[in-house]
Amino acid sequence: MDNFTLKLQASDKRPLYEQLYRHIITELEAGRLRPGEKLPSKRAVCVHLKISQSTVETAYGMLSAEGYIYARPKSGYYVSNIPVRPARSHPLPPAPAKSETPLPRFDFSTGAVDTGVFPYASWARLSREAISNPQLLQRGEAQGDLGFRQALAAFLREYRGVRCQADQIVVGAGLEYLLNVLAQVLPWESVYALEDPGYRAAWQVLRSHGRQVRMIPLDNSGLRADKLRESGANVAFVTPSHQFPLGITMPAGRRAQLLAWSEEVENRFLVEDDYDSEFRYATRPIPAMQGLDGGDKVIYIGTFSRSIAPSIRAAYLVFPRRLLAAYQERMGFAASTLSRFEQQTLRAFLERGLYSRHLRRSANLYRKKQQLLLEELSQLPGAEIAGAQAGLHFLLTLPGKDEAWLVARAAAAGAPVRGLSEYCRDCIPPKSTVVLGFAGLKLEEIPQAAAALRDAFS
Amino acid sequence: MDNFTLKLQASDKRPLYEQLYRHIITELEAGRLRPGEKLPSKRAVCVHLKISQSTVETAYGMLSAEGYIYARPKSGYYVSNIPVRPARSHPLPPAPAKSETPLPRFDFSTGAVDTGVFPYASWARLSREAISNPQLLQRGEAQGDLGFRQALAAFLREYRGVRCQADQIVVGAGLEYLLNVLAQVLPWESVYALEDPGYRAAWQVLRSHGRQVRMIPLDNSGLRADKLRESGANVAFVTPSHQFPLGITMPAGRRAQLLAWSEEVENRFLVEDDYDSEFRYATRPIPAMQGLDGGDKVIYIGTFSRSIAPSIRAAYLVFPRRLLAAYQERMGFAASTLSRFEQQTLRAFLERGLYSRHLRRSANLYRKKQQLLLEELSQLPGAEIAGAQAGLHFLLTLPGKDEAWLVARAAAAGAPVRGLSEYCRDCIPPKSTVVLGFAGLKLEEIPQAAAALRDAFS
Repeated sequence: MDNFTLKLQASDKRPLYEQLYRHIITELEAGRLRPGEKLPSKRAVCVHLKISQSTVETAYGMLSAEGYIYARPKSGYYVSNIPVRPARSHPLPPAPAKSETPLPRFDFSTGAVDTGVFPYASWARLSREAISNPQLLQRGEAQGDLGFRQALAAFLREYRGVRCQADQIVVGAGLEYLLNVLAQVLPWESVYALEDPGYRAAWQVLRSHGRQVRMIPLDNSGLRADKLRESGANVAFVTPSHQFPLGITMPAGRRAQLLAWSEEVENRFLVEDDYDSEFRYATRPIPAMQGLDGGDKVIYIGTFSRSIAPSIRAAYLVFPRRLLAAYQERMGFAASTLSRFEQQTLRAFLERGLYSRHLRRSANLYRKKQQLLLEELSQLPGAEIAGAQAGLHFLLTLPGKDEAWLVARAAAAGAPVRGLSEYCRDCIPPKSTVVLGFAGLKLEEIPQAAAALRDAFS
Repeated sequence: MDNFTLKLQASDKRPLYEQLYRHIITELEAGRLRPGEKLPSKRAVCVHLKISQSTVETAYGMLSAEGYIYARPKSGYYVSNIPVRPARSHPLPPAPAKSETPLPRFDFSTGAVDTGVFPYASWARLSREAISNPQLLQRGEAQGDLGFRQALAAFLREYRGVRCQADQIVVGAGLEYLLNVLAQVLPWESVYALEDPGYRAAWQVLRSHGRQVRMIPLDNSGLRADKLRESGANVAFVTPSHQFPLGITMPAGRRAQLLAWSEEVENRFLVEDDYDSEFRYATRPIPAMQGLDGGDKVIYIGTFSRSIAPSIRAAYLVFPRRLLAAYQERMGFAASTLSRFEQQTLRAFLERGLYSRHLRRSANLYRKKQQLLLEELSQLPGAEIAGAQAGLHFLLTLPGKDEAWLVARAAAAGAPVRGLSEYCRDCIPPKSTVVLGFAGLKLEEIPQAAAALRDAFS
């Protein structure tokens, strides 16, 4: 009983059985309890430590289940002959350093949305309906629930001119995740062409999979078809509706050239990232390139993260039917990464017309914001604007000013912006251009936000 | 105007501007409108087709934005000189075949949960609170929101003996997704050891990443340390709390051996998959192996999919601090795959003690189900049960019966079960063993479900 000098401490937050359990393990590790040695009877421990019999039973039961001790019928518990690890000190790991980045006064980031336009009431109502459906608790389909995919296919056909059926759609938690899926579905020896400047996460995902990547320069029509051909790549990523970050709308001629390129060789594909096509100001949204294709060369991807909110992780990928077998074989085992509650909420949002209403409201609001911001910035001498016909960001160029200076001045004014060069890998961008997102600015703060930039850049 | 013999059809669901837009593209593709040719004026089209001027403006605007046509000031619109694609027929892809698998009468699958115990009311209330928080609409932290990770770290410390802090945790949408992350964070040349029989998705994820995998046989204590050593692998996956599918609780001796193995060489790691450790019947849950470690050799993963519901995608990975830099570099750019609403709902569920209450209620229910099912099956002559001390499934062996026969008979009786051999890759399993999950069976239907199996197996 000498080994049980343990004092059970009321101040210790752990339950008594766990204190006892851990104490005995410590004794084993320290060699103070040796193999074959008999442990004190449960009753003796109760009396000695003034604890209940069930507490001792729990601790002995755990030790026995883990093989530290074993029971001999009508005799008691004995220490097993097992290699024990020497006692180790367990220093708590150091606390992480706190990040001290101050919040900016004005949000010119390209990833934000206006939280004022989010349909809180209808979203909450549809979520509650979803949560009350017990069927949605079980594991769903790998590609996403059929009803959600059907609603999505109907929406994409009507609003984006995408020709697809539900069985071609895979929904998942975010564009980056779907790029992950894509990198695994296409043969590993594929060579990927990316727009330069372009969307950085695509490069990162492909590189983290060890895939071969070629950076392709752009001209005024978007990805250069001649350079694509020279690169030897067989999968080309494009953002034809609103190139990220330059804002170019790819003209029909270039679309035709790229589609023709894809059709020349069996294993060539275009990946059309339609990330913010919902918002177009001068004209109606331009139909997706996927709809121009015969249906077997364009892989179409889109997301609700820009059109509803970044925290809504739902994104979708439309496979040409010829890639479905490879998807099934390589990724068909994984459960969907998207919550079924969120899938059902989005499905109802689409089916009841709430999503198209939300898009109209959002587009009107973003149009107003963009116009106001452009007016305010037009007072900046020499300012040139590009890429403003669509989307939630545009480019501001101030000839003669240095990009690094613009970025530093904006940050100092509490209105941080990104320089265009951040999106370049091999390309040499214009020297005096920054990227301005406006969705995260409140309409009423735009005059002050623009004034802050004007002051900073003067 | 001959080219505009288009009849706009009210029966066509597409808006009028889109019908006009598509008609003109068809004319271009067919060569009936040629480069340089002047288009009819907007006004002429309005009158001819009896549609509003804004409809024509919209269609012309889209065509112009895409470069099909261009405007000359004070003159009108002209067809651009662009390569047009020949007109293609666009057959709608064939409809997918409908799957006709009948629903089983009794659900013995290992992935189901009891939907009756789901806390609908409190989940709906916490979700509504989350949805009404505008901050949660913006993009969150890549690893998951700090508050959620802090609540999770506290829970894991208290309930699972896991020693970690919030900065070591990455939350994501499902175990498979986190295995994806892990495969990208560890060096690509790592060699992975998997339990055989074991969790099939781990093999699939690693193979889809092209990683080297070694299958390691088990003995009564779980993964064989000698075979692990021989395999040359440097990352070993284990399920020490309740081996999947055998149900073995790894004894302390084997844990010590595996930890010692991991410590011999710098780049060796253990991945502890604690997938259903919350449910333990004979004793309290046994603390995780991660807590025995000094904190730098065990990568701990767990999920809410078993403890709450499969459709709740939240899973978590606890990195040793020495792997955090590699995580940041290779995966730190990606937004979390988990909805922030769901993160916040789970955070509140943890912080307000609702999760531990839910676990107690669930464990009591599952204990009852398991006891009842075991009692009912004990009437089967010769039946042997294994792995029933924890988790939501166990093994049933009927010596002398053939596994394929058992599986076929159960399926015919509307109570499909899996044979143990389905979980083997290289191993040769016992010939007469099936895996029975019981969480998805209602308590009151267990007598009938067991009777169906008894009849089928007699």
